[in-house]
Amino acid sequence: MRTNGRQPDELRPVTIEAGVNRHAEGSCLIRCGNTEVICTASLETRVPPFIRNSGLGWVTAEYGMLPRATTERNRREASAGRPTGRTQEIQRLIGRSLRAAIDRVRLGERQITIDCDVIQADGGTRCASVTGGWVALRMAVNHLLRSGIISKDPILDHVAAISCGIVFGCPVLDLDYGEDREAETDANFVMTGRGTMIEVQCSAEREPFSRKELDSMLALAGKGTARLAAIQKAAIP
Amino acid sequence: MRTNGRQPDELRPVTIEAGVNRHAEGSCLIRCGNTEVICTASLETRVPPFIRNSGLGWVTAEYGMLPRATTERNRREASAGRPTGRTQEIQRLIGRSLRAAIDRVRLGERQITIDCDVIQADGGTRCASVTGGWVALRMAVNHLLRSGIISKDPILDHVAAISCGIVFGCPVLDLDYGEDREAETDANFVMTGRGTMIEVQCSAEREPFSRKELDSMLALAGKGTARLAAIQKAAIP
Amino acid sequence: MRTNGRQPDELRPVTIEAGVNRHAEGSCLIRCGNTEVICTASLETRVPPFIRNSGLGWVTAEYGMLPRATTERNRREASAGRPTGRTQEIQRLIGRSLRAAIDRVRLGERQITIDCDVIQADGGTRCASVTGGWVALRMAVNHLLRSGIISKDPILDHVAAISCGIVFGCPVLDLDYGEDREAETDANFVMTGRGTMIEVQCSAEREPFSRKELDSMLALAGKGTARLAAIQKAAIP
Amino acid sequence: MRTNGRQPDELRPVTIEAGVNRHAEGSCLIRCGNTEVICTASLETRVPPFIRNSGLGWVTAEYGMLPRATTERNRREASAGRPTGRTQEIQRLIGRSLRAAIDRVRLGERQITIDCDVIQADGGTRCASVTGGWVALRMAVNHLLRSGIISKDPILDHVAAISCGIVFGCPVLDLDYGEDREAETDANFVMTGRGTMIEVQCSAEREPFSRKELDSMLALAGKGTARLAAIQKAAIP
Amino acid sequence: MRTNGRQPDELRPVTIEAGVNRHAEGSCLIRCGNTEVICTASLETRVPPFIRNSGLGWVTAEYGMLPRATTERNRREASAGRPTGRTQEIQRLIGRSLRAAIDRVRLGERQITIDCDVIQADGGTRCASVTGGWVALRMAVNHLLRSGIISKDPILDHVAAISCGIVFGCPVLDLDYGEDREAETDANFVMTGRGTMIEVQCSAEREPFSRKELDSMLALAGKGTARLAAIQKAAIP
Amino acid sequence: MRTNGRQPDELRPVTIEAGVNRHAEGSCLIRCGNTEVICTASLETRVPPFIRNSGLGWVTAEYGMLPRATTERNRREASAGRPTGRTQEIQRLIGRSLRAAIDRVRLGERQITIDCDVIQADGGTRCASVTGGWVALRMAVNHLLRSGIISKDPILDHVAAISCGIVFGCPVLDLDYGEDREAETDANFVMTGRGTMIEVQCSAEREPFSRKELDSMLALAGKGTARLAAIQKAAIP
Repeated sequence: MRTNGRQPDELRPVTIEAGVNRHAEGSCLIRCGNTEVICTASLETRVPPFIRNSGLGWVTAEYGMLPRATTERNRREASAGRPTGRTQEIQRLIGRSLRAAIDRVRLGERQITIDCDVIQADGGTRCASVTGGWVALRMAVNHLLRSGIISKDPILDHVAAISCGIVFGCPVLDLDYGEDREAETDANFVMTGRGTMIEVQCSAEREPFSRKELDSMLALAGKGTARLAAIQKAAIP
Repeated sequence: MRTNGRQPDELRPVTIEAGVNRHAEGSCLIRCGNTEVICTASLETRVPPFIRNSGLGWVTAEYGMLPRATTERNRREASAGRPTGRTQEIQRLIGRSLRAAIDRVRLGERQITIDCDVIQADGGTRCASVTGGWVALRMAVNHLLRSGIISKDPILDHVAAISCGIVFGCPVLDLDYGEDREAETDANFVMTGRGTMIEVQCSAEREPFSRKELDSMLALAGKGTARLAAIQKAAIP
Repeated sequence: MRTNGRQPDELRPVTIEAGVNRHAEGSCLIRCGNTEVICTASLETRVPPFIRNSGLGWVTAEYGMLPRATTERNRREASAGRPTGRTQEIQRLIGRSLRAAIDRVRLGERQITIDCDVIQADGGTRCASVTGGWVALRMAVNHLLRSGIISKDPILDHVAAISCGIVFGCPVLDLDYGEDREAETDANFVMTGRGTMIEVQCSAEREPFSRKELDSMLALAGKGTARLAAIQKAAIP
Repeated sequence: MRTNGRQPDELRPVTIEAGVNRHAEGSCLIRCGNTEVICTASLETRVPPFIRNSGLGWVTAEYGMLPRATTERNRREASAGRPTGRTQEIQRLIGRSLRAAIDRVRLGERQITIDCDVIQADGGTRCASVTGGWVALRMAVNHLLRSGIISKDPILDHVAAISCGIVFGCPVLDLDYGEDREAETDANFVMTGRGTMIEVQCSAEREPFSRKELDSMLALAGKGTARLAAIQKAAIP
Repeated sequence: MRTNGRQPDELRPVTIEAGVNRHAEGSCLIRCGNTEVICTASLETRVPPFIRNSGLGWVTAEYGMLPRATTERNRREASAGRPTGRTQEIQRLIGRSLRAAIDRVRLGERQITIDCDVIQADGGTRCASVTGGWVALRMAVNHLLRSGIISKDPILDHVAAISCGIVFGCPVLDLDYGEDREAETDANFVMTGRGTMIEVQCSAEREPFSRKELDSMLALAGKGTARLAAIQKAAIP
Repeated sequence: MRTNGRQPDELRPVTIEAGVNRHAEGSCLIRCGNTEVICTASLETRVPPFIRNSGLGWVTAEYGMLPRATTERNRREASAGRPTGRTQEIQRLIGRSLRAAIDRVRLGERQITIDCDVIQADGGTRCASVTGGWVALRMAVNHLLRSGIISKDPILDHVAAISCGIVFGCPVLDLDYGEDREAETDANFVMTGRGTMIEVQCSAEREPFSRKELDSMLALAGKGTARLAAIQKAAIP
């Protein structure tokens, strides 16, 4: 039994509320336990220089955290003068993950920017951002389809992410902040709706992990992301 | 009649939901029409150098806007590398306004930081930040009183803020974004619960304004902030 | 009687020396008591992106202070890496004030940049910058008219600014640095030659102010700016 | 057969030349094919604030690339004003990997900074940096042991890293730059001398990868890092 | 005959007005033809970390230019976010030159900061800054002596600087901006009152220069700096 | 006799290894005693804005130092956020020196960027950068000539640089780091193959220097750079 009373393979309660922002082409508020992230998708005609005139589309992501999303107040990144290394690493992960499930030819030469802003944090914010970000992306693409701007759906599959870890020697799913601090190994998995993998990140925090431990976490992640894909499906308006 | 159907002295619907953040010592979500701001109050023992060992407290504020709070997506300030002049001007205003209603001796040598993050913008975000920020401050001070850290209430009065303007020649209260863009004159008033003034800012946007127009706006602001003080009172848990 | 021996409605000695810079299209050195500001107007054909091809002109301002303009040496902003919030707030005020008195259609698609650099500071530097900045602007516009680049005068009226405050309970005009530090309320007024208002900024520094105190300061400011407009007129070559 | 004529499980020629820097406590030049990285270990008595007075040591890493390490010249990061997100991600990976193999109690309250500077790049620079960085660290620790500053060896095991990928559908080891650009999946593995794992990073670049493909890459990485550990051992003076 | 009508060894008219700033411990306005620089000396008890508790003093310098000191307006360095390479090179030169003539033991553990701000530029601003900076330094040191804070004069000699160049094949003294742009070789000499050298900087701008040309410029510089030392002496109050 | 056993006019052992970088159009590793610098020349078709469409070429330089090139580890400039004043001064010197020996018309509208990265430092790094930079430039220009892109050699002469100094009262050539710290006067000379001068920089570090001392250093530098030009010639492949 885990310190939070969950089974090793048990997700926290997850809710996704779509349409929380009246300006964005897609948006949702995703809650995973006490972690809360607002995700918006913004459709832009301006694309980055390296794809200009290529006919290809682009999906990118930015990530932020309100100063008091955390137990102790954090310094605002705009005051610090630059996004931290952690922030940049997370926004690269979100962007890469969502691009992996999109047909950039079908999207056409336009950019969709996914903003993930953590309102309250209790572990797993990057995974919640990927999962919620996909819902915002799906809505923005639906908007493009409905308004006839594109005609074929460029989204190839669901994309959802979940953390796993080895905590007190036991592989567990969806760590909260308390577990994350104790974990010997910390992992994030981004997977598609059909169970193939987009990203595997697994780091020893205290001591090296074995192949067997990695296999256990892979199995947990497969179950978790399948459940998240079902919640995504139900949330799309 | 205004373009949004309101009377000249009519506020937009205002709601204040307290306690929206589980980490902060005080917090609320204030909605003024379509403008939505999350305000948190963070209690810190570290104080700025200029009051160290003075026995006096400090209240400061920071302000931010999610990239898609606006009709068009805005660049994230952390990417831009620094807070804009507008952001700095607003956070100085919020801090100055809230400090004006606090007895810094009674607060004692500690700092309360008010973070105001605009989730959705439709005009009047700085005024909503002052009004909601006061609620978060009130809750954090109540926390200090309840836990016996301080014994005398350092808050002297309510502080609330509202915008006014001259739109198509007519003085009106609480401009939304559409009115704000059309206004000949743009003003913000910060007032106490008993109707005295903390800050008056009034700028000609298109042509100079007369003394008579300033007087009309002062009257509107007095009514508006009295109404807001009542809403603040009802919102405190 | 004030600590500096002036009457409540008495300005410090003001002189404006025009043409102090041989390169600039307009320039002056304004002295208000011990406050000294060099103002230059630079004519530029490049305009900001948001007015390109609009046929409209633009007036903008920048503000700086020499490191030893003040009693204690201040850090140079170029070393600090960015203009402070105070600097940005002041340069936005100067720009807004001067734009309010110009017909941007008559000016045509060109930019005039007003640089206000404080050589010595003793309170009221932002007001001296507006008043002196107008003289530099007037000279640059005269240059445009004389050289036939534009044919109709785009300047609608004088623009001058003065500070007021409540010091030891008494409303006074044109505070020096010593008074500014003591003031309960601090205000800046930007007015036209005919007495209408461009900007009113009034902040409680120690305790809220009443409507009656605001009215007294408005009356003082009206007298002060009328006197400054006469000094401006006499200074233009 | 691969475009570069290697077998799928074949490393490029690897050489490690130790002691290339006369100032550093440990140093080497590692060459993996045409990729060349200078690694130095600097012993510092100053430690980061979060471990001060804890008695624990710290190992951290920084990564850089000479502007013409690449086919096209890259902008120098000092001119750009900040390390890129990619640079920060890599230096976090190197630091995390090397810390995983060190007993921080035995190291004692001191810091070792590993600098990895890419002189010439042809794919796999982050893996070469981990592998060469470990050699520099080993030498600096030997210096501490030899000079009697510490008495028990804090290094628990070898740490080496290697890239794998799926190129034209085939899992291969140690990608050069040409293969890296073509890869459908891109992975980096950091492993210990006894074959346990410190870091697994696997990203779909073009399309999701399967569990079977991940398993193939894990097997290749195990072989590759075992071979690198032997080369490390031979290189230590 | 030069384009400006001067003899090859003729300085421009030079005036030094001391005491132009009421706050600074030493100050002057130096005019060399149309070049005008305000120099202030600020006495500070805080010293840089590398001399703390050494008993030695420090003299440092900062240099700036008002945006419209030049024919075309220049971008303000505070907006650019950092001092340019040219600015840093100049302030290092001024600081090094003035330190060369001071006995740091006699000065004692305190810092004097020399600020040189160019109000109007017409060539030779760095040399005018050194020459005027020395006057400000002399006054600040006199202030220390008069007030009994130090008892032995730490200033060893006059320090003055002048530019030379090869213009249309002819060695000339004290180039104005027009000559500076045409010069084949550009040089700056910092010398003491007794004619020894503190700094020689000589750069080929168009083609290499000969030993004979260097010798001619050295002779011109000796004459020029002797004349400047006399003007410095007369200017000290 | 010098502390390092050399004669006053004796260079350290100098070697230049050409072609150390497989990507760059020209490259070398220059070793002057224990000082080691990698120099690369990168050919770019993009030129700086101020020469666009002029038909003229440009040569520019950048300079860096690996963090552990020095006895104590130095902070990486990319972490510091900007090149230091010293770095900027050095890269301006290298660029200016190499441009002085090139016919920009013959080079045609293209840019060659010389990167000088110090791998190990023991005094004289800026001089080694100029001398090695010229070799890289020569190779890149040979590449342009061989491939028929330009037809007339734009390089007018050799360019080499050497330091001199007054150490314990004695003029000496090519200071190492130990001598550099003791020197009363510190100088750098950039000269052509035929012995004319491109740059003379001579600074009093402890006390002013005399004309006679300057003359001695000029003589030493002439000998030293003639020797370096011969080594350059031998190194070009």
